[in-house]
Amino acid sequence: MNRRESTVDNESASRVRHVACIGAGVIGGGWVAHFLARGYRVTAWDPAPDAAEKLRRLVDAAWPALTELGLADGASRDNLTVADTLEEAVAEAEFVQESAPEDLALKQDLLAKIDAATPADVVISSSTSGYPMTDMQTRCANPGRLVVGHPFNPPYLIPLVEVVGGESSEQWAVDFAAEFFEVAGKHVIKMDREVPGFIANRLQEAIWREALHMVDNGEATVEQIDASITEGPGLRWPLLGPCLTFHLAGGEGGMAHMLDHFGPSLKSPWTRLEAPELTPELRDRMVDGCEEAADGRSIPELVADRDKAVIAVMRAVNEVRGAR
Amino acid sequence: MNRRESTVDNESASRVRHVACIGAGVIGGGWVAHFLARGYRVTAWDPAPDAAEKLRRLVDAAWPALTELGLADGASRDNLTVADTLEEAVAEAEFVQESAPEDLALKQDLLAKIDAATPADVVISSSTSGYPMTDMQTRCANPGRLVVGHPFNPPYLIPLVEVVGGESSEQWAVDFAAEFFEVAGKHVIKMDREVPGFIANRLQEAIWREALHMVDNGEATVEQIDASITEGPGLRWPLLGPCLTFHLAGGEGGMAHMLDHFGPSLKSPWTRLEAPELTPELRDRMVDGCEEAADGRSIPELVADRDKAVIAVMRAVNEVRGAR
Repeated sequence: MNRRESTVDNESASRVRHVACIGAGVIGGGWVAHFLARGYRVTAWDPAPDAAEKLRRLVDAAWPALTELGLADGASRDNLTVADTLEEAVAEAEFVQESAPEDLALKQDLLAKIDAATPADVVISSSTSGYPMTDMQTRCANPGRLVVGHPFNPPYLIPLVEVVGGESSEQWAVDFAAEFFEVAGKHVIKMDREVPGFIANRLQEAIWREALHMVDNGEATVEQIDASITEGPGLRWPLLGPCLTFHLAGGEGGMAHMLDHFGPSLKSPWTRLEAPELTPELRDRMVDGCEEAADGRSIPELVADRDKAVIAVMRAVNEVRGAR
Repeated sequence: MNRRESTVDNESASRVRHVACIGAGVIGGGWVAHFLARGYRVTAWDPAPDAAEKLRRLVDAAWPALTELGLADGASRDNLTVADTLEEAVAEAEFVQESAPEDLALKQDLLAKIDAATPADVVISSSTSGYPMTDMQTRCANPGRLVVGHPFNPPYLIPLVEVVGGESSEQWAVDFAAEFFEVAGKHVIKMDREVPGFIANRLQEAIWREALHMVDNGEATVEQIDASITEGPGLRWPLLGPCLTFHLAGGEGGMAHMLDHFGPSLKSPWTRLEAPELTPELRDRMVDGCEEAADGRSIPELVADRDKAVIAVMRAVNEVRGAR
């Protein structure tokens, strides 16, 4: 990535009022719903003949949830325009989010067209769940303003957006996208380098691959796999990620105790994923990261927080299950 | 495992009133708190000199949460006796839960001692998070009644218990343990065969190993890894396990569409875990499993449930974060 000094005026990201969404399927449509709820004007375009109708259905379905969560001032479904052409959709956009199907050639072509039609200096972000921007920006005349802004389904609810540039992206565009998404109410992880699958999908994919192996070998059923998460570790993960979860598995000694005592279990034939060697450097990086994340809270304080969250999460989920 | 016809009277599992907990650290103590809250009489034993004091502290710390969740009739911390010897602890027990440190030789020896001291026909369950019962029951005179009953931390809140026997375990003991844990308020996954790490830990471990690789390679920090889960997929997992989550990633075509379209991405270099080949049999097993789990609910109905749950979970977690 071009590391030249960022020239982005951070406030400019908060001046964006008009977003173009190119591609309006489950993810693109989810973005449309999110931006409308945050009070933006949205122009959308999708080549499918029934796209406009499907998009309005998706937004209508999401709107009650978004209303309950609280709409931004001026938020309205009337702020959506479905454009007839890509060029029309991006002509006045101040930020562009592309959510086309996962097909590299298609994305290369589409991003080049978006680049050609979008006003200069407007950042173009791709929802790709796996392609590196380096591979997608190859045919753009102005590749510097292209970045990945990878959301999670549904983009109108799940806060996470992973932001990362490709080799030809410029730092100001990465910074602008990160800033814009934060202002638009998302939780941004700004990555320093491209990694296939980014971060969350790699972790999610590790579970998914192991689950497929277990079903393939007749070791577990789909039902058992899902229950093993929803009734087990899944109840902890909304508050504590995998690292802090294991910080608490170490008792009062935290991550240090956990790694020093259970480190050898990494050699066990659990999962088909080979573990890295637990070098002193890796150990320290994990321990220091957990200390930082704990932010001064003691293990008993973290445990109390976790217990409160698990109870609240169980209650919330049981309510949804009970209302069926 | 000995598959002889189960002779367990299922009602007998609901007649258990007295549980012995051997080992009273984080997991054993968590079991003590759980059983007390469900109204059982509990005798505990742990060789550590300060075990009794630590155990009472752990139970006291958990009690407010358990009270808030609702105690069973007659539940009281006064129903706990800390025994001076293992023999005294199990003498009158109707169910025994062992939660010693993860050390195979230690567990083999301890389980043999528990077996020798516990009344005949009482089931003995181990909290081991990884050892197969086949390897642990080797020194027991009556190995048939030994099973794994693997909980998740904290055992007084997380419902999941994985129940599985070893080669010398008898089916009645597995059935009895499963029935007993259900009656005692847990969500039981009864496994047909021993797999290293059981189910949930294999899935959790897959994430963990990938996370360690990413930190090791400088691809992500502890903070980014945790946020990628707590702000992302972690918000969906309390309601929908990994399989149903991907059922919804396929849009209106569900798991079938998802596998048929994104199957090839299993070949991508995401994670260091190699994916199994997506054979037609595996595909069908995943699709059928999801259909079954959906239990007649359409994709839009599942989506509506998911959205309600994600909102409720986010609110619950934000409340805990806000109260810090």
